[in-house]
Amino acid sequence: MKFTSQTSSNGVVERTFTLGDLTGVLWSPESGPSGAPLILAGHPGGLDKKAPTHVARAHAAVTRDGFHVVSIDAPGHGDRPRSTQDLRWINEFRQARADGNPAFGRILADYCASVAARAVPEWQATIDAVVALPEIGPAVPIGYVGMSMASAIGIPLTAVEPRISAARFGWASAHDALLEAAKRVAIPIEYLIPLSDKEIPREFGFELFDAFPSEDKVLLAFPSAHHQVPTDGRLDTRFFPRHLSHADSNTAG
Amino acid sequence: MKFTSQTSSNGVVERTFTLGDLTGVLWSPESGPSGAPLILAGHPGGLDKKAPTHVARAHAAVTRDGFHVVSIDAPGHGDRPRSTQDLRWINEFRQARADGNPAFGRILADYCASVAARAVPEWQATIDAVVALPEIGPAVPIGYVGMSMASAIGIPLTAVEPRISAARFGWASAHDALLEAAKRVAIPIEYLIPLSDKEIPREFGFELFDAFPSEDKVLLAFPSAHHQVPTDGRLDTRFFPRHLSHADSNTAG
Repeated sequence: MKFTSQTSSNGVVERTFTLGDLTGVLWSPESGPSGAPLILAGHPGGLDKKAPTHVARAHAAVTRDGFHVVSIDAPGHGDRPRSTQDLRWINEFRQARADGNPAFGRILADYCASVAARAVPEWQATIDAVVALPEIGPAVPIGYVGMSMASAIGIPLTAVEPRISAARFGWASAHDALLEAAKRVAIPIEYLIPLSDKEIPREFGFELFDAFPSEDKVLLAFPSAHHQVPTDGRLDTRFFPRHLSHADSNTAG
Repeated sequence: MKFTSQTSSNGVVERTFTLGDLTGVLWSPESGPSGAPLILAGHPGGLDKKAPTHVARAHAAVTRDGFHVVSIDAPGHGDRPRSTQDLRWINEFRQARADGNPAFGRILADYCASVAARAVPEWQATIDAVVALPEIGPAVPIGYVGMSMASAIGIPLTAVEPRISAARFGWASAHDALLEAAKRVAIPIEYLIPLSDKEIPREFGFELFDAFPSEDKVLLAFPSAHHQVPTDGRLDTRFFPRHLSHADSNTAG
């Protein structure tokens, strides 16, 4: 892991890094106790690790909760080159979407599954590298958050990665491999469903939510189109502080 | 409104009252600023205003949020006599439930609709009486919370009662009049669905949730059977403090 830049503003230290072919960013509190939890923050498809809403959420987790947040560019996103096959898939599902072709869902799911197969070992290498940092360490509680394509990555990641102990997913596009992976995820889960999304039917979200064997899970559904997460507090159950912080701040809310 | 008892413990003043034929209880902070919000708390069918879990939630709203909470016995519940017709309905739906008879849902819905028709004006009289108390006053923000039968009452109440500005409902049993009432409720809504409930299919919850024209609404679904609401924080978005308290405590959570 090689840090390539470091800046600091409003209580947040931002360090970009490379790790082999990976490009990523680590946000940390300027000061705070050691042992602060680590959030793995996946970005949705078509965006990247520095997308403004993604950065804003990371900053909030750092300043409000005192967490570290790490994000990496998904394969073919941000600072990483896109393969010919990925370009073909993206053109195909954009065309299918424009045509109202019902094959859209299948093509998007295949693309997401392919990205996930590559991204899971990348996230595992990222965890290895980040917990090797002395200010973080191997005992830190770890959560994963990511919607859409980042759920298609995060669900199989969480299925094979015992270091992740709480996860917030949402509106992933349907495919069988994802349902199979969900059946192996028994940690606390929040699952978000935007009910007005035309592209990903709500029924798939319900099916995926049911598939998680977690006892401690909640589905949060709201009237919104794709990629619009309400930020007015209505989805905020203090999920990561409740599950990752030693001092549960829920009762103080 | 005639107070019939007053006790005080752990920061909560409890006053029972009668109002005509009504029996009720008002919980208030022992001390605190005037103008504190008022929660109308309906109890589920078969319980009453002093059911232990109901009282525990009321105490939490008083001590944690500084709210007043008022609860009244529904017609035929608690200290109030049950009519012959109510007894017939209850026996019928208990029998239908025991027999696995699909008429169960219809009978329960008819019973709840009848209770609601009587309870709505009772709640309105209760609001009139409570806001006439000098320590509460007519300008106080008002929320309604109630699951199951208390949603079958609360939804038509909220449809006709402009003083209620936020409401938390859940797992109401299906009937058309309830859907029609929901279409007239445009305030902020939380709607709870226990996904393992065999008696009230989740689909009705989704349909009812969709019927509320509210822009600010969220559906919270979780693996639980009837009448078991998780209290571990996973459903706690600080809903009433966000909507009723002048000092929004959400960002401090």
